[in-house]
Amino acid sequence: MAGKTTGNMLIAQSGGPSMVINQSLIGAVIEAKKHAQVKKIFGALHGIKGILEEDFIDLKKESLKTLEAVAATPSSGLGTVRKKPTAEDCKAIFAVLHRYGVRFFFYIGGNDSAETAHIINEEAIRQGYQLRCFHIPKTIDNDLRENDHTPGFGSAAKFVACALMGDNLDNRALPGVKIDVIMGRHAGFLTAAAALARVYPDDGPHLIYLPERAFSMSRFVRDVKRVYKKLGRCVVAVSEGIADRNGIAIASKFIEEVDSHGNVQLSGSGALGDCLSAEIKAKTKIARVRADTFGYLQRSFPGVLSERDAREARGVGAAAVKEAVKNNTNGSMAIKRLPGKSYRVKYKRVPLKNVARETKEVPARFINKAGNDVTKAFVDYAAPIVGKLPPIGRFKGVKVKTVK
Amino acid sequence: MAGKTTGNMLIAQSGGPSMVINQSLIGAVIEAKKHAQVKKIFGALHGIKGILEEDFIDLKKESLKTLEAVAATPSSGLGTVRKKPTAEDCKAIFAVLHRYGVRFFFYIGGNDSAETAHIINEEAIRQGYQLRCFHIPKTIDNDLRENDHTPGFGSAAKFVACALMGDNLDNRALPGVKIDVIMGRHAGFLTAAAALARVYPDDGPHLIYLPERAFSMSRFVRDVKRVYKKLGRCVVAVSEGIADRNGIAIASKFIEEVDSHGNVQLSGSGALGDCLSAEIKAKTKIARVRADTFGYLQRSFPGVLSERDAREARGVGAAAVKEAVKNNTNGSMAIKRLPGKSYRVKYKRVPLKNVARETKEVPARFINKAGNDVTKAFVDYAAPIVGKLPPIGRFKGVKVKTVK
Repeated sequence: MAGKTTGNMLIAQSGGPSMVINQSLIGAVIEAKKHAQVKKIFGALHGIKGILEEDFIDLKKESLKTLEAVAATPSSGLGTVRKKPTAEDCKAIFAVLHRYGVRFFFYIGGNDSAETAHIINEEAIRQGYQLRCFHIPKTIDNDLRENDHTPGFGSAAKFVACALMGDNLDNRALPGVKIDVIMGRHAGFLTAAAALARVYPDDGPHLIYLPERAFSMSRFVRDVKRVYKKLGRCVVAVSEGIADRNGIAIASKFIEEVDSHGNVQLSGSGALGDCLSAEIKAKTKIARVRADTFGYLQRSFPGVLSERDAREARGVGAAAVKEAVKNNTNGSMAIKRLPGKSYRVKYKRVPLKNVARETKEVPARFINKAGNDVTKAFVDYAAPIVGKLPPIGRFKGVKVKTVK
Repeated sequence: MAGKTTGNMLIAQSGGPSMVINQSLIGAVIEAKKHAQVKKIFGALHGIKGILEEDFIDLKKESLKTLEAVAATPSSGLGTVRKKPTAEDCKAIFAVLHRYGVRFFFYIGGNDSAETAHIINEEAIRQGYQLRCFHIPKTIDNDLRENDHTPGFGSAAKFVACALMGDNLDNRALPGVKIDVIMGRHAGFLTAAAALARVYPDDGPHLIYLPERAFSMSRFVRDVKRVYKKLGRCVVAVSEGIADRNGIAIASKFIEEVDSHGNVQLSGSGALGDCLSAEIKAKTKIARVRADTFGYLQRSFPGVLSERDAREARGVGAAAVKEAVKNNTNGSMAIKRLPGKSYRVKYKRVPLKNVARETKEVPARFINKAGNDVTKAFVDYAAPIVGKLPPIGRFKGVKVKTVK
């Protein structure tokens, strides 16, 4: 590595917004302001789109009050984008970085964003351009390699758990079959978090289907019938990304749109829920069958937030800047959980390529054998990340003797 | 009226659950426990279904701690039902009331529940059976006559406002057209509450469609195009109950199920949102169009609650019991807003028939002329009912000068 890096900083956000992505942004900006090596701080609007169009705002012109207000606000304060740079884009990005004297580049996002940072970093090395290049993790999907869990997951998981708590109470009050479709293309972590909603032994979700296990429509119908027969009701949590045994997403049979990463659009449509609901109506005699698709509420509902998630998101943003400035390194900051009974984490620099492209899935030990629920190991893993959930009261319910 | 009533009490919940319907239940139970005239307190499980099946729990056997825990829990603690009693049911209900020594009957619900209470009350008078019969208002739809607003509305409206705040931020970060389908069959109050989400001048929802105005698909497409052209994005709040100029619900063209009140099932399906989304995709060149249907989350999401709504729900439950016991009357307790600058309400007994059957709609003064937004008068009306919303931060955003 060359000597101590000095110059301007550029930071941008990418991919789907989250509840705490602004915590990472502000954590990085506040840390950067402490170091004389970092001159100007540019925020690119809408990720690499803003870099390519040279659409920057001056983040040193923002008051601490505004920075803190943005940190506490969901979604991406700088705007975001779903775009993967082409080889040509990369050349153009370099021209921009050079022209603006950018020597510190931070890109907050998921695996696609890590890949973008990786490509830019490789290009910088190839061109002998001194650039400190960091990926800061963010994804509600919780599917980044090297990370115990990712910033954004805890808060989205809290939304899902609360939603299922409410929905279970609703279903208990007005029985029937209720299907909740939850975000998660390939990784079922967020859907799995539905399990945290359970307080009493008969609480839903009674069935949980993740994309990590092949989804069989006939087994699904059998599962629902069994639960309904036992409890007179059934709450189902299902990932939008469930796929059949050939790996074909069930939702993709109804939806055709794809983005520039080649991903099928699964969210922002109620098609999967409606199709599962129709199947239950057709194959059973259950009168009341409903489906809700949680959609975008999961990732940006103000007020529903895991405090720990917010703290870690800020911490990982600040840690990336510290690493880049003080240790003159490149990489991705990962969250590692320390062994031991009580929950503790550390932030560790890992190579960009370790986080880029491929994702991780829900490990086998978190999924039950039948493939229709999660295990206690998953609940133990997720509970401290999500934090405290609202208390749920229930009547003791002493039955009144029948009067003849 | 006959002399002071003494005997057992029966209370039940009906219709769709809400965030605060248990506050009304517990408000009534705690008040009833103060009066020696009220002997046993029975809770019927699942509304009149529980009365007909004599499925009661003894609410005097519940600790104060449990009562308060249930009060703070969303959904209907006793369970609920969507069932309108037939003439035969009414006879059966009387037999039950008589057999169980019930002299105080409280039914918490919307206009259908008020009608049920009214039928039972009329029957009691006809049979010369001394019964204090009260309807306690509850509906997230806010459509009960005689009421300035109804318990449950404030909290559901807060959920909608928060959801739109988050969704607007999401849409601002990742631009496109976003359509949010909100509960409300004939009354658009809940959809109108989406307007409370606006903080900055360009904030969504940019268009609001209520069932009170005929919905024209071509005008909808024109409206969206206009907003998108101006802002590069568009957030739409639309009621599930929107209907064409012949009064045919747009959603009913896709959904066929009806309940025993003759209502088409509008919630628990994403069909309307998907159809509106498809229309925009077909008629414009906008690439990113998404729809979310908020579904049941609106009425039972733990933690998202208007404090004032919770207080009033409890107050109106307690007031009904006081009226019945102390003043020996029948009726429905209504929330009246007092004139004056600061927000104040009183609970007033009104005749059951005034609340039963017919509902009220969003008044004309709350809807803009074009029929695609609400007025400031609506925001002034709804804001104090919903209460404080989360703060939303935004960068000042001083643009960096282009470097040549």
